[in-house]
This record gives sequence, structure tokens and C-alpha cells, in this order.
Amino acid sequence: MRFHTRKWIKPEDLNPNGTLFGGRLLEWIDEEAALYAVVQLENQHVVTKLMTEIDFKSSASQGDIIEIGIDAVKFGKSSLTLRCEVRNMMTRETIITIEKIVMVNLDKQGNAVPHNKTEIEFVGDRLNA
Amino acid sequence: MRFHTRKWIKPEDLNPNGTLFGGRLLEWIDEEAALYAVVQLENQHVVTKLMTEIDFKSSASQGDIIEIGIDAVKFGKSSLTLRCEVRNMMTRETIITIEKIVMVNLDKQGNAVPHNKTEIEFVGDRLNA
Amino acid sequence: MRFHTRKWIKPEDLNPNGTLFGGRLLEWIDEEAALYAVVQLENQHVVTKLMTEIDFKSSASQGDIIEIGIDAVKFGKSSLTLRCEVRNMMTRETIITIEKIVMVNLDKQGNAVPHNKTEIEFVGDRLNA
Amino acid sequence: MRFHTRKWIKPEDLNPNGTLFGGRLLEWIDEEAALYAVVQLENQHVVTKLMTEIDFKSSASQGDIIEIGIDAVKFGKSSLTLRCEVRNMMTRETIITIEKIVMVNLDKQGNAVPHNKTEIEFVGDRLNA
Amino acid sequence: MRFHTRKWIKPEDLNPNGTLFGGRLLEWIDEEAALYAVVQLENQHVVTKLMTEIDFKSSASQGDIIEIGIDAVKFGKSSLTLRCEVRNMMTRETIITIEKIVMVNLDKQGNAVPHNKTEIEFVGDRLNA
Amino acid sequence: MRFHTRKWIKPEDLNPNGTLFGGRLLEWIDEEAALYAVVQLENQHVVTKLMTEIDFKSSASQGDIIEIGIDAVKFGKSSLTLRCEVRNMMTRETIITIEKIVMVNLDKQGNAVPHNKTEIEFVGDRLNA
Repeated sequence: MRFHTRKWIKPEDLNPNGTLFGGRLLEWIDEEAALYAVVQLENQHVVTKLMTEIDFKSSASQGDIIEIGIDAVKFGKSSLTLRCEVRNMMTRETIITIEKIVMVNLDKQGNAVPHNKTEIEFVGDRLNA
Repeated sequence: MRFHTRKWIKPEDLNPNGTLFGGRLLEWIDEEAALYAVVQLENQHVVTKLMTEIDFKSSASQGDIIEIGIDAVKFGKSSLTLRCEVRNMMTRETIITIEKIVMVNLDKQGNAVPHNKTEIEFVGDRLNA
Repeated sequence: MRFHTRKWIKPEDLNPNGTLFGGRLLEWIDEEAALYAVVQLENQHVVTKLMTEIDFKSSASQGDIIEIGIDAVKFGKSSLTLRCEVRNMMTRETIITIEKIVMVNLDKQGNAVPHNKTEIEFVGDRLNA
Repeated sequence: MRFHTRKWIKPEDLNPNGTLFGGRLLEWIDEEAALYAVVQLENQHVVTKLMTEIDFKSSASQGDIIEIGIDAVKFGKSSLTLRCEVRNMMTRETIITIEKIVMVNLDKQGNAVPHNKTEIEFVGDRLNA
Repeated sequence: MRFHTRKWIKPEDLNPNGTLFGGRLLEWIDEEAALYAVVQLENQHVVTKLMTEIDFKSSASQGDIIEIGIDAVKFGKSSLTLRCEVRNMMTRETIITIEKIVMVNLDKQGNAVPHNKTEIEFVGDRLNA
Repeated sequence: MRFHTRKWIKPEDLNPNGTLFGGRLLEWIDEEAALYAVVQLENQHVVTKLMTEIDFKSSASQGDIIEIGIDAVKFGKSSLTLRCEVRNMMTRETIITIEKIVMVNLDKQGNAVPHNKTEIEFVGDRLNA
């Protein structure tokens, strides 16, 4: 799994108990999944369709750094299924694992359309080629 | 199900496609679940432990109003299981349904502790009694 | 008065003294008034025209939950006058009362137009009918 | 009246109708009033106690610049009464006028205490003396 | 140098070390420079092209008030060069000085165009004339 | 150069001209530099001391994805000098290059202290070892 995006936990990211607000983390994950899908499907019109069970195994504190990792697990006809893991770089603990995040490829009218992709492309290669 | 909190979709809540950013919605739901649990368990130290599958059935546009509803479905020893539905007041469509959101009751050290609650209390009654 | 929306006071909502930032509360109230008017007038084009005196009677601290209540007090020709009360669910104290918030019904060009409403409709009934 | 703070209306400041969100403006005004009081009373522990009627005379659009002006109108024993005007630098229109914003001087326990100030000091003078 | 805009350091503006987050300060400076240029060039289409070295000489803490000052130092054909200083009103220390911030005047297609200005105009005069 | 963090340009990130708000980008860069330094220096108490000239070579639009890359260029006694490049994954253009961002290693009292690091460690190796 490749961990692209890191976040530094600031006061604005805490719940009233002083730990990372779960809702903020879900917001970051959803954005990361969209980013990954946009790049792989070469289409800005993607939406999150489904996330499987989200289990909060540990949390993070102010000043901790977390990493969000995404892998593609299945290319459907008009969908892309991702797997996500978030870990705390300070405590080395896994914070969340989501087995499937299903992203859908849309046309400009918002209808699902085939994306014609079947495997991960390494963006560095494609973009710099 | 009682729908307490409403949100008006503003430009800051949109994804680049111009529809409600899914991550923002998940943030709102997590906050609403925490609110509900804090009130029912009469304890500010609650955390989200688990959310079951999240299926985005429809979306919302700028200017739409959405409602977030929460019901308690099970009182565990130190947990409270909620059910959540979000609907679009403009289109009358359901946006998301989450069958189980498990909240855990903590002591000040962050350990799960029994909450001694077994049923929903109507806050209006309790607070105004 | 019906209290729809609740907020959980997070670090990002505090002033430098560590209590609820009054400006944040006013932002929440204005949004809630707009939401209420949009639903009652069945029109997304509403604006806040006037708020009468705002008296901050008490405050709220990190982790407190507050409730924002709105009632319709008068249906004008193109306006809707609301009354607002915000209370702290933890301390049972009233935080703010605003006797009148006047919302105006607009057409798409931004001009005030009659809304043809004369009484509160219960949205649950109307929307689910 | 001295206009200190300016804001540039960005997409994140708009309501769903595409004009300046009133709640955002109230947030900016409350912050500006607190700033003014902190500087004049030489005390960081000040709170907003009361705002008189707020009349939205005009609005602002994306890209407009607004200016927020504050004047001290009365020094009470433990309070400071301000007057506020917000104007749109593009259209030259007044957006809001608030005749009285009453700020209260607090000690560290949050009780109102005398501030021993009787007139405006020009901060430039005092700070650079 | 005229110091227009003030900011009150709130919890949401802190880095995890509890001092003013440098990124937030840079955001405020960029906005202030844009505001200044829009007003002077009488054109909303301006962009930041270049900032010279940024040296963080001191910081600020929660509850401090900072002032952001901007001066015009050179009117180019399609550019305007500004100088910026930020100071802490509590400690009287300079936080940042930026010798040159180059703003560019654009037409609606985003191309640099002459602005035909050669000196600072006092906005009060121009706007109220 | 390794590009860790990606951002998806949403409406809340735009300036009134509809392109990426430069201040937002500077905020992201400062956070990314801090993240990199915290990980390399194994110390959460780091601050940004200096950034050399920032030249905005191109911009980004709503829906674009940008990547922020950081490299360590020099380990001082108590400082770490980074180089930063931001590029637009859609247009393949460089948005900003900053030759030097100097981060300083602090003790808990906020004084610069030696960090005893002399070269980049690959976090994956260190964290998983």
C-alpha cells in the first residue's frame, strides 16, 4: 500500500475529548479516495458510492502525524474499488482500515459510464512520460 | 426516527463536481452520533468505535437542506448502538442510511466503562423536569 | 419552541478565553433561521433582513452541547418573522434569546416577493404526504 | 470611524444564493469588536454581552471587499460600548450598522471587573511609545 | 505603513505546539496583499506572482492580537509591488517582514494587462469623493 | 523528490477569481514542511524559520489535483533545510518552487536545540523495522 497523504493533528482537528475527531478523519479519507480515483480513471467526475465497515482501532492526539494509504483492489466496468488504511506515524498503530471504498466514474451529466481501465497505472510514469 | 439537525448546503460543502462533498457529510454524521450519545449517556466522554456499511444512495446540491436522523437501536454494557438516516428535504430522497454506529462510553482515562443506561430518555423531559 | 439543531462545542469553536466564540454562535443562528425559512416558505431564495437585540446571558464550554430553537412568530406578505432561543443542554441555561429575526422571501432576481404562506406547516407532514 | 479590517469575499463566504452569508459577517463583526475591546482595555479577557438591532441594508458578492469599522461610544465601569458599521468598498453601500455592541471586561475567573479606562487610546501611540 | 487588518489568535489558528500556525499567517498575508491590490488597482482580477524571503522573527500565542501592514513600494506597468510587515500587538515584536510581494493586474481572460496607476490613492478619499 | 501529499481543489480553496487561492496553497506547504521535519527530526517541536522566494509560475482550477513534494537539502546543527515543489497533476505544470524552507528543532521551552541528525531516514524503514 502506498501512503501518500499525511496530516498533522492540529487543535482544529480535535473532538472535545482532545483526541482526533472521527468525522474529520472520515472527511480526509473520502477526499483521499476521490483523489486516487480521479488520477487512476483520468476523470474528475467521480463520486464515492459505498464504504464498507469502518472500525476505529486507535486514535491520535494533537501533534501526531497520520498517514492515509489507498490501494486499488478491483476495476469494475464503471467503478473502482479501493482499500484504505490510516496509521499513526507516532504510535505505529493502525487507526482505521476500510476494506472497500467503491468509487463510480461519471459523465458530465452525472451518469455512471465505463472507464476502460483495468489496472493501476503509476502516475509518475504516465504524467512524466 | 427523530431528525434533529439540518444543514444548508453552501459552496464550502461542495466537491469539485458541485454536489455535496461526501466527506463533509460523514463529518456531520459523526458529530451527530456523538451528540446523541453524549445526551443519552449523560457523559461527554464518548467515541465512535464502528460504523457499518455506508451506501450513498443520492446526493444533494447547493441550496438543498438535508436532515440527519439518529435512533438508538441497542444499549450495550458500555456501548450504545445507533442507526442513522440522512435525507434531502428538497428531493425527499434518502442520501445515506447507516444501520449501526457503535459509540463507546469512556471514563476520563479513556477506558470503556459501563453507562448503566438501558433505554432512550427523552431529553426534553429529563432536562426540563 | 422546537429545537432542531444541536452543536457540540469543539476546540475550533472557542474564543481565546476558552469559551464558545460568540461569532460562531451567531453564524449558527443565522444558518438555522435561513433553514427554517427555506422550509416554511418553500423557496431557497431567502435572506436575513433584521435581528433584534442579542443578549448573551450565559456561555458554553468545550464539550458542551447546545440546542438552537426557532419559532415562527409572524407571517408578513413577503417576510417571515422568527424567534430564536439557544440553550446549553449541559447547564440547562439559556445562552441567547432573539425576539425577532426577519427573513425576506426573494425571487431569482433578488427582489422581495409575496410568499403566500400564512401559517406554520409541519414539514414532516408536508414532505411525507 | 476607523475602518481597520477588510475582508475579500471568497466562495467559502457565500450562502447558497451566492451572496455574502450573513452568519459569516456576524462572525467577523464579533471578532472585530473583541479585538477592539482587547486593545482598548488592555485585557485579553473580554466577552460580547449584547448587540442591539442588526439591520442588513445591502449585501456583497464574490470578489467584493468589505470594511469593518468600530468606534467606542461609551466607557462604563466594567463595560465598553462600541458602534459598528460595515460597508462594501465596491458598491460604496453600507451593509450593516449596529448602534451598540457591549463588551465586558473580565478577570481570570470570568467575573466582570472595572477596567479603569475612560477614553480611547490610540494604539499606535501607546504601543510605540 | 498602514496596518489595516487585525487578527485575534484563536485555538483554530494554532499549530500543535500551541503557537500561531505559520501557514495560517501566510494565508492571511496573501489575502491582505490581494485586498490592497484590488483596491489600489480598482480591479478584482489580481493575483500574487511572487513573494521574497519570509523570515519568521517571532511568533504569537492564543489570545494575542496581530496586525498586518502593507505598503505599496513600486507601481510597474501591469504589476504592483508591496511590502508587508506583521507585528504582535501584545509583545510589540515584529513577526514577519516581506520586502516584496508582487501582484499582477489581469484582464478577464487571465492575461497581465497595464493598470495605468502610478501612485497610491487614499481609498477614503476616492471612495467618499 | 518525493511527492507525498495531494490536494483536490474544492470551491472552498478558490479565490474570488475562481483559481486556487495562493494563501491556501502557502498554508498547505507550511504544513507539509512541518510534517516532513517532524518525521525526520523525530521531534514534534519544530517551527518554520524561513522561506526563500516564492514564485507562482502557474495556478490550478477547481477539480484539479495538486501534489506537494519536499526534499531535505541540508541538515544543520539545530535546523533542517528543505526544498519544495508543487505541481498540478492535471496540467503537468509546476505551480511553485521554493528553494529553501528552514525548519528549526526546538526543546519544550521553545529554544533551538541540536537534533543530531545528519541524513534523511526513510520513514517506512524506520517505522516498520
